[in-house]
Amino acid sequence: MRIAVYPGSFDPITYGHVDLVRRGLAIGDRLVVAVLANTDKNPLFTVEERVAQVRDAVRSLPRVRVEAFDGLLVDYLKKAKADLIIRGLRAVSDFEYEFQMALMNRRLSKRAETVFLMPGEAYTYLSSSITREIARFGGDVRGLVPPYVAKALRARFSA
Amino acid sequence: MRIAVYPGSFDPITYGHVDLVRRGLAIGDRLVVAVLANTDKNPLFTVEERVAQVRDAVRSLPRVRVEAFDGLLVDYLKKAKADLIIRGLRAVSDFEYEFQMALMNRRLSKRAETVFLMPGEAYTYLSSSITREIARFGGDVRGLVPPYVAKALRARFSA
Amino acid sequence: MRIAVYPGSFDPITYGHVDLVRRGLAIGDRLVVAVLANTDKNPLFTVEERVAQVRDAVRSLPRVRVEAFDGLLVDYLKKAKADLIIRGLRAVSDFEYEFQMALMNRRLSKRAETVFLMPGEAYTYLSSSITREIARFGGDVRGLVPPYVAKALRARFSA
Amino acid sequence: MRIAVYPGSFDPITYGHVDLVRRGLAIGDRLVVAVLANTDKNPLFTVEERVAQVRDAVRSLPRVRVEAFDGLLVDYLKKAKADLIIRGLRAVSDFEYEFQMALMNRRLSKRAETVFLMPGEAYTYLSSSITREIARFGGDVRGLVPPYVAKALRARFSA
Amino acid sequence: MRIAVYPGSFDPITYGHVDLVRRGLAIGDRLVVAVLANTDKNPLFTVEERVAQVRDAVRSLPRVRVEAFDGLLVDYLKKAKADLIIRGLRAVSDFEYEFQMALMNRRLSKRAETVFLMPGEAYTYLSSSITREIARFGGDVRGLVPPYVAKALRARFSA
Amino acid sequence: MRIAVYPGSFDPITYGHVDLVRRGLAIGDRLVVAVLANTDKNPLFTVEERVAQVRDAVRSLPRVRVEAFDGLLVDYLKKAKADLIIRGLRAVSDFEYEFQMALMNRRLSKRAETVFLMPGEAYTYLSSSITREIARFGGDVRGLVPPYVAKALRARFSA
Repeated sequence: MRIAVYPGSFDPITYGHVDLVRRGLAIGDRLVVAVLANTDKNPLFTVEERVAQVRDAVRSLPRVRVEAFDGLLVDYLKKAKADLIIRGLRAVSDFEYEFQMALMNRRLSKRAETVFLMPGEAYTYLSSSITREIARFGGDVRGLVPPYVAKALRARFSA
Repeated sequence: MRIAVYPGSFDPITYGHVDLVRRGLAIGDRLVVAVLANTDKNPLFTVEERVAQVRDAVRSLPRVRVEAFDGLLVDYLKKAKADLIIRGLRAVSDFEYEFQMALMNRRLSKRAETVFLMPGEAYTYLSSSITREIARFGGDVRGLVPPYVAKALRARFSA
Repeated sequence: MRIAVYPGSFDPITYGHVDLVRRGLAIGDRLVVAVLANTDKNPLFTVEERVAQVRDAVRSLPRVRVEAFDGLLVDYLKKAKADLIIRGLRAVSDFEYEFQMALMNRRLSKRAETVFLMPGEAYTYLSSSITREIARFGGDVRGLVPPYVAKALRARFSA
Repeated sequence: MRIAVYPGSFDPITYGHVDLVRRGLAIGDRLVVAVLANTDKNPLFTVEERVAQVRDAVRSLPRVRVEAFDGLLVDYLKKAKADLIIRGLRAVSDFEYEFQMALMNRRLSKRAETVFLMPGEAYTYLSSSITREIARFGGDVRGLVPPYVAKALRARFSA
Repeated sequence: MRIAVYPGSFDPITYGHVDLVRRGLAIGDRLVVAVLANTDKNPLFTVEERVAQVRDAVRSLPRVRVEAFDGLLVDYLKKAKADLIIRGLRAVSDFEYEFQMALMNRRLSKRAETVFLMPGEAYTYLSSSITREIARFGGDVRGLVPPYVAKALRARFSA
Repeated sequence: MRIAVYPGSFDPITYGHVDLVRRGLAIGDRLVVAVLANTDKNPLFTVEERVAQVRDAVRSLPRVRVEAFDGLLVDYLKKAKADLIIRGLRAVSDFEYEFQMALMNRRLSKRAETVFLMPGEAYTYLSSSITREIARFGGDVRGLVPPYVAKALRARFSA
């Protein structure tokens, strides 16, 4: 059985991420969305909030599990008995960072093969950071993130 | 009448920005330089100082107005009755960020068309951040920024 | 009056080009689509065929003229009394070539300011060469090019 | 059962391609190496020679089949009952071309999902074209291509 | 006598940096590794620690000197009677930043010529920041950094 | 004694190449400009014409020799007793091709270290191919190439 891990901060999850989960299901028999607990970027939502948001977003998809993780990705892969890492590529700048991470993960563990998928072209412009910025200034984020997340963003920035 | 908005942090304005204002006047009947008040990058100069610096730098150019703005750019465009966003492109890394922003602004407002211009080749190397860094170490910033800004940089870093 | 020139090979014109013509009308009071006669790439369609295809594609758009041109773009600009060059940017590789051409044109003529626009995201993947390749193998090009062009492609490759 | 297709010109197959076939086996239950018959680049080896070279190179790998193909890749996928396209990514310039092809293939067929893998870092510099160039000038291509191919290259250029 | 300066943060020095020092010795008669004291990135190690780590890493190499430096690089070059700046290029994103810095340094001093070298391909994936991240999560950094540095990283993160 | 080789097609030599020769003299005690005889691109000028053009362009520079070469660059390096390859970097697309060539040359010969230099920013837009294109359409190439070359281009295209 092929288990694939899709790691990320998901701060918050966008429709671009959801699109990638769907595509990842064509690769893995099971897919684990692994929400990075310790990001050094001071996240907007706690890891518990982010896990809840991702769970809500993928609740209708079969064969998907959502978990928080901490530490090195290759250690998490071993624990999850996974061999594949799923990552989305949108732009050249993504590419270089992802290339470096993939080579390093391969070096840290022979099992860690990274598989790159391209999100639907409607999501090329979409990222968590741009979504946060729009929400911060009261812009409309429906169509960018699932309703549960849109509500959480409004609550966070209405204070 | 075509009104174009040239948004940015201008922390501080450089001769590269001034070059772009001149080029932008070939596109818009009127050009508004919109100084972003709320940058999350902790600016060196306050928005009032930056507006004053930009006003000084473009004071001899006709059809140009300088204003501070806050919030979403597409909301500001509506208020300014502008349809065009002017942005400079210097490098590939600029390109990807700008592409993402342009697509997102287009999504947030049908009116927001982004127009990219290339600064003169003498300004390819020039950015606000590199200017701040040179000034911080007592380097000579004449030729990079207008005299009024050079003076402000010296005052800021001589303490 | 601002006259903008949108030069290209248009071998053949795609919906991505048509999208750019529409966007270019926001910049110029008049727009000239200038079809490059002498491409060294051995075009699929003659310049007369390409001009006819472009004329058909933009026939409902006001303020647009279609012409063949030969020689240096800056010489054509002078003849057309135009100051602006419209070019589309889709990808990083476009960017570098376009940057080089824009700087060179600026060097050859002070009047030649290049304005870059981004096509709609649905057209990011679309180019004349990929369209020709699909048509060559009997793929469906409707949705990529106007009906008049689709018909010409079928005729060309059905022999 | 997941069937993946790895398409290419393989003119000739290098150790970088072989590395990618191995990695592709982690994705697909079966892998078809599809050798493009009709390249417009005037190949060094005929399609029959290239198929023979690829077959020799992957003969020890289980679950791999080698075939020539012609026409649109999406049509071939349907015939091969495959859902996944395997492609290698080495560099930014690869990325843009591959991105465009992947989006176009997705548009031509909903089934065609492209999966990108990274070759081992020892193969970053390696391509068929650079191998041909070295062989043309009598350079040593062992270590770049399998022995069977090295012999074919020597035979081709010794005349 | 050609004196070359190889400036950087070296927080910490990796085997990729050591590789570049070796290559730099083919360019300069003497090579000065200049450790930037004042980085705005809040370094993991103090400048004294970093100088000691670099000295340990290059102690067997002839014609190499290690020093801390502060302020503008062009001022340091003058003091060190050096004409050449050595920099490593690994990726496209490196390239753009380095290009900008090289042009600016050339502008600040006619003497400052930047020479770019490529690290061995085994070090393409390696950077100080990725090394720190691996060490932070208890990953094995042997093979990435010299033993002296590996020990310092373990000490720093075991607390 | 450091001997550096600056290889290229030089079809024709531009002021950008001349600028790079000057910069290369800061690296090598002697510099050999090596004019590639066998380009597969069907050059505008014969190798004898190109060698004559380069010789004229660098005749006032000390320590520079001009030669035609054929075959693998690493073989030529050995013959010329040179250890360094000088190459110019202008753009991201240059970078990737050059990176691949440098890694391959390093693989073919341990002696072959490639040194990258950046041309003056006034030459960023300049290439042999764009110069040929301008000359073909009767554009003014003075300021792009030395007088001797400008004359040769006029003669070639006036027929």
